[in-house]
Amino acid sequence: MDGNAIVLTSGLLDTKNAKTAHGLIRGTERYNIVGIIDEKFEGQDAGEVLDGKKRNIPIYKSVEAFQCDSSEKADYLIIGIATKGGYLPAEMVDYIKSAIKIGCSIVSGLHEFLEDKPEIVELAKVNKVNLIDVRKPKPSKELHFWNGSISKVTTPIVAVIGTDCNMGKRTTSRFLMEAMREKGYNAHMIYTGQTGWMQGGKYGFIFDSTLNDFIAGEVEHAIVSCFENENPDIIFLEGQSALRNPNGPCGTEFLISGNAEYTILQHDPVRKYFQGCEGYKVTIPTLKEEIDLIKIYRSETIGVTINTKEVNEEQAKSFQEENEKALNIPVVAPLFDGVDRIVEAIEKKVLKK
Amino acid sequence: MDGNAIVLTSGLLDTKNAKTAHGLIRGTERYNIVGIIDEKFEGQDAGEVLDGKKRNIPIYKSVEAFQCDSSEKADYLIIGIATKGGYLPAEMVDYIKSAIKIGCSIVSGLHEFLEDKPEIVELAKVNKVNLIDVRKPKPSKELHFWNGSISKVTTPIVAVIGTDCNMGKRTTSRFLMEAMREKGYNAHMIYTGQTGWMQGGKYGFIFDSTLNDFIAGEVEHAIVSCFENENPDIIFLEGQSALRNPNGPCGTEFLISGNAEYTILQHDPVRKYFQGCEGYKVTIPTLKEEIDLIKIYRSETIGVTINTKEVNEEQAKSFQEENEKALNIPVVAPLFDGVDRIVEAIEKKVLKK
Repeated sequence: MDGNAIVLTSGLLDTKNAKTAHGLIRGTERYNIVGIIDEKFEGQDAGEVLDGKKRNIPIYKSVEAFQCDSSEKADYLIIGIATKGGYLPAEMVDYIKSAIKIGCSIVSGLHEFLEDKPEIVELAKVNKVNLIDVRKPKPSKELHFWNGSISKVTTPIVAVIGTDCNMGKRTTSRFLMEAMREKGYNAHMIYTGQTGWMQGGKYGFIFDSTLNDFIAGEVEHAIVSCFENENPDIIFLEGQSALRNPNGPCGTEFLISGNAEYTILQHDPVRKYFQGCEGYKVTIPTLKEEIDLIKIYRSETIGVTINTKEVNEEQAKSFQEENEKALNIPVVAPLFDGVDRIVEAIEKKVLKK
Repeated sequence: MDGNAIVLTSGLLDTKNAKTAHGLIRGTERYNIVGIIDEKFEGQDAGEVLDGKKRNIPIYKSVEAFQCDSSEKADYLIIGIATKGGYLPAEMVDYIKSAIKIGCSIVSGLHEFLEDKPEIVELAKVNKVNLIDVRKPKPSKELHFWNGSISKVTTPIVAVIGTDCNMGKRTTSRFLMEAMREKGYNAHMIYTGQTGWMQGGKYGFIFDSTLNDFIAGEVEHAIVSCFENENPDIIFLEGQSALRNPNGPCGTEFLISGNAEYTILQHDPVRKYFQGCEGYKVTIPTLKEEIDLIKIYRSETIGVTINTKEVNEEQAKSFQEENEKALNIPVVAPLFDGVDRIVEAIEKKVLKK
């Protein structure tokens, strides 16, 4: 573990923009989360704000309030939100400066880098803390080309693919890894986003800030490394975006280059347009259409997991029943029901138990 | 036009590795090609080595021989080969140094950058020439996110997609642009590789050295810019790799994000495995399979163009006839037959003439 961390969401904790914070509240092996900085939810518990489950992570209105009221010391301040375009919101700069002054290194997964902000760089230098730009692209010499070594991996690989971005793929991947581990399996997860790294992921890379030529090779390298070092029973592969998302279609890298012979498909029963593509002629496909497309890429969809941000338990249940009947695979709502039924499907179809 | 250029292929002119040189020999509006440097083909004409057509581009064994024997002066030396991994072959360094000494700026499309070689950087400084690393990634602040502005483009967009990489997509795109222009159409081509830029492409970007998050946006931005500035009758979109290539699957960015409602599919009748994936379980699909997949991404394949590197005219003809019957669209071999029949199909199906 790297140390104690506070997470900055400044008023956005209950929005989809705070997905980095949400992941960290749900669990991370890289940091011990000792507080959230969000003036809107001051005094509440972050777990309760997220999904009603108390997690003993207090929310403070400011870095100063954290320092005053908490018995813990923070080694890091993590920027807990993703913004459109990856820009660092101007109103966050003061929070960052305050954190640097109390000795926090800053962790950011934004496209706009901390190290490009002279005032922050200078202050960090004076206070002897680090600026960690997680999304900073690696130069090509540190990246891998695909070379076919994926062929030697005998561990089954399950991709968690979504019908759109920002739907819960990472959370589902993590739930599956944890549930399989609880049952005694040596389960691993390949992270492909900045939050996955912040949650302690050992194998993976940051998909969207990688030069395109190396995407397939980085997927392969992460899986092969995990296979060689961990001797896993199963590997989950966190997907990104969606196969037909106009904003940035992707997914074949996982299915073909990463040889994910099995897929769990994450879906939002309500969303019609791809996020950020409202009004564009391409709409989110049906589950059946997406499963058929995934099959073309040689992967079998063995379960569907649904995002329940916009539906209640009853609506979720009715969607599940209807689709389970039509598709003949388990359809579950991880945040309501957990993922036990998906784990059963994995045991049966993937591990052949 | 930027100026006179010599192209370095050092012994590889007749191989697939020299595809950059091949493109430049076929035509470029950025440079006036005044010679090829290749000791193996010294004294021959580069066009004749390429495809039997004389183009008055002499081949010299060395930079010194060019300087001695040619009446032209070169402003640039272009590295005319692509290497596995994008490395700069050690044996090319001496040629580069010689060229710098006679006042040439160096143009490279390799992943390994000239500017990372201190001895070359120093020599270039002394001789006051430039080092142009075409594939150097742009920082995120110079790149574009997809924003849906593609919707306003009323010009039909035709993607040239391949069933594998290194098959002639760029050459076909260029042939189509030229043939349409000859018929009086205001035809444009969006380049997506380094050779396309070297050939004078005004709109486009280098796909494989772009951060993944911006691929869809760069495709869109190039098309929208071309549409706004040129008022074109038709836009051809140079594809990259192939939809199911394990080495780096791609293509949906053109079809969905770039709204290419029509596709010309480039295919090699002989190749079975994806290049560099020999022995891997995923093989190159049939034309029918690929056309069906392209249709899922809302694009209609209106013609097939075939690579004839490994087949003679008779074999090409028999492949063409058989597939034309089965697919009911024109199947042509551009290097044998030209692209007139594809142009006719475009006039009929795309321009509805």
